Parts: sequence; C-alpha cells; structure tokens
Amino acid sequence: MSEVGERLGRRIPLYIEVDGGIGRCGRQPGEDTLQFAQQIRNLPGIEITGLLSYAGQIYSEEGREEIRSTARQEAATLKNTADLLRKAGIDVPVVSGGSSLSSKFAQELEGVTEIRAGNYIFHDVGQLSMGMITVDDCALRVITTVVSVPAPGRAIIDAGSKTLTTDTMPFSKGFGYIVEHPDIEIFKLNEEHGFLSYDPASVSLHIGQHLTIIPNHACVLPNLCDEIVGFRGGVPVEKIRIDARGKNS
Amino acid sequence: MSEVGERLGRRIPLYIEVDGGIGRCGRQPGEDTLQFAQQIRNLPGIEITGLLSYAGQIYSEEGREEIRSTARQEAATLKNTADLLRKAGIDVPVVSGGSSLSSKFAQELEGVTEIRAGNYIFHDVGQLSMGMITVDDCALRVITTVVSVPAPGRAIIDAGSKTLTTDTMPFSKGFGYIVEHPDIEIFKLNEEHGFLSYDPASVSLHIGQHLTIIPNHACVLPNLCDEIVGFRGGVPVEKIRIDARGKNS
Repeated sequence: MSEVGERLGRRIPLYIEVDGGIGRCGRQPGEDTLQFAQQIRNLPGIEITGLLSYAGQIYSEEGREEIRSTARQEAATLKNTADLLRKAGIDVPVVSGGSSLSSKFAQELEGVTEIRAGNYIFHDVGQLSMGMITVDDCALRVITTVVSVPAPGRAIIDAGSKTLTTDTMPFSKGFGYIVEHPDIEIFKLNEEHGFLSYDPASVSLHIGQHLTIIPNHACVLPNLCDEIVGFRGGVPVEKIRIDARGKNS
Repeated sequence: MSEVGERLGRRIPLYIEVDGGIGRCGRQPGEDTLQFAQQIRNLPGIEITGLLSYAGQIYSEEGREEIRSTARQEAATLKNTADLLRKAGIDVPVVSGGSSLSSKFAQELEGVTEIRAGNYIFHDVGQLSMGMITVDDCALRVITTVVSVPAPGRAIIDAGSKTLTTDTMPFSKGFGYIVEHPDIEIFKLNEEHGFLSYDPASVSLHIGQHLTIIPNHACVLPNLCDEIVGFRGGVPVEKIRIDARGKNS
C-alpha cells in the first residue's frame, strides 16, 4: 500500500485495526499494535491516522449494564493502546470504536473520538429484543401480504428468506417482529414464504391482509432490494435508490 | 383474475396449487381440490391447465430411499387428484410437481408431466450432504480471500452472511463447503466476514490465499450479486448478468 501511495505522490491515510475482542481481524491491543505501528510508521507512502476496533461481542451481552461495561472496556482498550503509541512518538489523531449498541453510551467512552454506529439509522429486532430501543425507533419495515391461511392459527406471507434473511437473534424467537400483532410468531421461512403461527382465538388473518415486519437484522436487508420507500407521517414521500445493491463481493 | 381475463378478451391459463405436504399454500389433495376446481371451472376469463405442487418436506429426508419414497408419494397424490378431476369431466393436461431432489427419480413419477427442479442448475451443500450428488456437480462457487489469520487454526475470509447467507443445512456443519480443504469448517459468519476453524497441524492458510466455497443453499446467492462469471475448463469465458437481482419483493 505504501508503494501505491508513492506512485500517487501522496501518503495514504490509514487506520490500524485493533482486535476489539471478537477475534476476527486486526492486531492485538497493546504491545502487538505498537510493534506493528513501529514497523510501518516510516514507510514513505502511508500515514497512520488512527486506531480502529469493533467489539462485536457486545451483541451477546444480556442486559443494559453488561452492554455499558463492554462498551467502556472497548474504549479503555483503545485508549490504552493509543496512549502507548503516543508515548512512542506516534501521533494518533483518531480513535475509532463502537457499534450501534455502544453508541448509547457515547459520552462515557473516554478517549474515543469517533463511533461507527451502522445499524443506528434503522435499528431492528436485535436491539429491540435487548431492550435498548422501542418499536418506534425502528425505521426499516417490510410490508408483506398474507397469501394463504391453510389451517387455524397458521398463515403464510409473501416474504421469505430472500426478503427477511434467515438471521436469528439470541434474545427473540422467529424471523422478525410483526408490528400489528407482536404475538404472532414467524416460525419458519422458505425462500419466498414466511410461516406464521398464532392463537386463532385472539388473532384472525385473511388472504390479502398486509402485515408490517421489523426485520431481525436490518443491516442485511436493504442490499437485497432496488429501492426503499421513504415514509413521513405515514405517507410515502420518496424512493431511495440502494447504491450498495449487488455490491457484496 | 377471471375478470382480468374477460377484459383481455382471452382465458388466462392457470394451475391449481395442491398442498404437496409442506402445509404452505394450495388446496388439500383430493376432494378439496376437486371442489375448488368445480367452483372455478366455468368462470369465463380463466382456464384450468393443470395441477401443481411442491413437496418441500423432501429436504428433511435422511436417505436416498426416503427421498425416493417422498417423491413417489407426491406424484401419487397429484395423479390421484388429477384423476378425480378428470372423472368429473375437467381436463388436466399438465401435472406439475417435483423438486431438484425428486428430479433424480423422474422416470418413476407416474402421472407427472413436468418437474420444476430449480436448484438443479447449480446444486449445493444441501444436496451434497444428502449424498445425492458429487462436488463436481456443484456449479456455483464463491471465490474468497483469506484476510486475517488471528490465531493458529483460525482464519477469516472476506465472505460473510451478505455473500453466503446464514442458511444452514440439516446434514452438514457450518456455512459452506471449502473445495480445497473440505476439513475446514466455516463455523461463524458476520456480515462481511467468515470465521474458519481447522487443525493447524494439517492445514496452513495465509493472508491473500484464495478459497473456493460451495454454498449451503445456492438458490439464495445469485440474487445477491450483479453478475456471475461463467467458467469453462477452468477459464472465465463470460459474464452472466443477474436479471433477478433486487427483485425479491
């Protein structure tokens, strides 16, 4: 990458990724990151602009206090490593951490200068089932139609795994939250269809009926579609084209 | 729909869907389907062209003989219902059933005139793990790159749930089959990354290395991409545009 920078005639700014505890990418916090920074700091085509981490394990925490604690721990790890680099004479202007969950405690994350909260724009069942948000905070919704009612307490909708994805969430059942009937469970998905189960004594569904679903995992839905329809006050106001559609690989 | 046909000035050909045992859509086999056919047969804007079913439960069968038996059962159910309609004077030119699994026994499915075998074009781990095909029969492959080797026996690739989907298969572990190293397990996916685990004594991976993955469920992958690259004899020969991309809803 340094060679690319040299060819371009400018230093390419880069973050060093620090493993935030998820064991995926990046250097280990502390000495390992410092050693790596020292190896690359004098390369002519790059410039270290900061440290970056992602503590994805926060999505396995069970309660608000555990989430807060994990967020603070990620911040402390980042700050300690940044301080180590600074003591060695390496400038670290940006310390980038966080997630949509830790963004709820942004003011407590000492030393962090930037939080990357990707899911924040939509929210989903993941955050809802952890008690961190309300239904009204969930901006992405899938409008589906009941296409079959094969038996009492059983209905089929026209959204399956190709729309809702098969992502599940540790603290909720099924494949999404039905706004009109939170007690209905989407218990199974085929590619084109979702299977609903409910108590026929309290819920009645009919073919053609619309149901609004908050997806389990909002991040993986928009890229499945050409566009999202923007609503304001219950009224569709614009079509938003999805530039990232089909850009997975 | 009959009114639409009348407006168009022609009879719209339609299949009556018969529940193939998956409990999703369609009428029940036998009398229920006959009654429905009798209700609609004289509508002026439609024309019954056949019966159609899908016996998706075949994908839960454990062995070749169980699969064969379920395929034959679906065919018998369809044939009996078609015969019932014919006795009542309703013409049933097309009897459409099947799946990629039952297509393996096509010549045994008496009375069936058409098999819809969607997965047949690609095949995947679903059929591989059931012993119905070989690795060479799997035409859809995802080429990935190792981007991190954080610990011995652990590597990260640049394909996650947005590429491979989180679909799992009842008779295999993990999220795909790695052609070069079938013993490596893709044990976890985040959106952008796959987590591999392997025995470091027998397998060695390095950053930048390519791995070829047969997906668990081929049906849900092509629509995630703009195009597929067609290979012949190991050489890329054409780019195939995916017309269905973004057409989920």
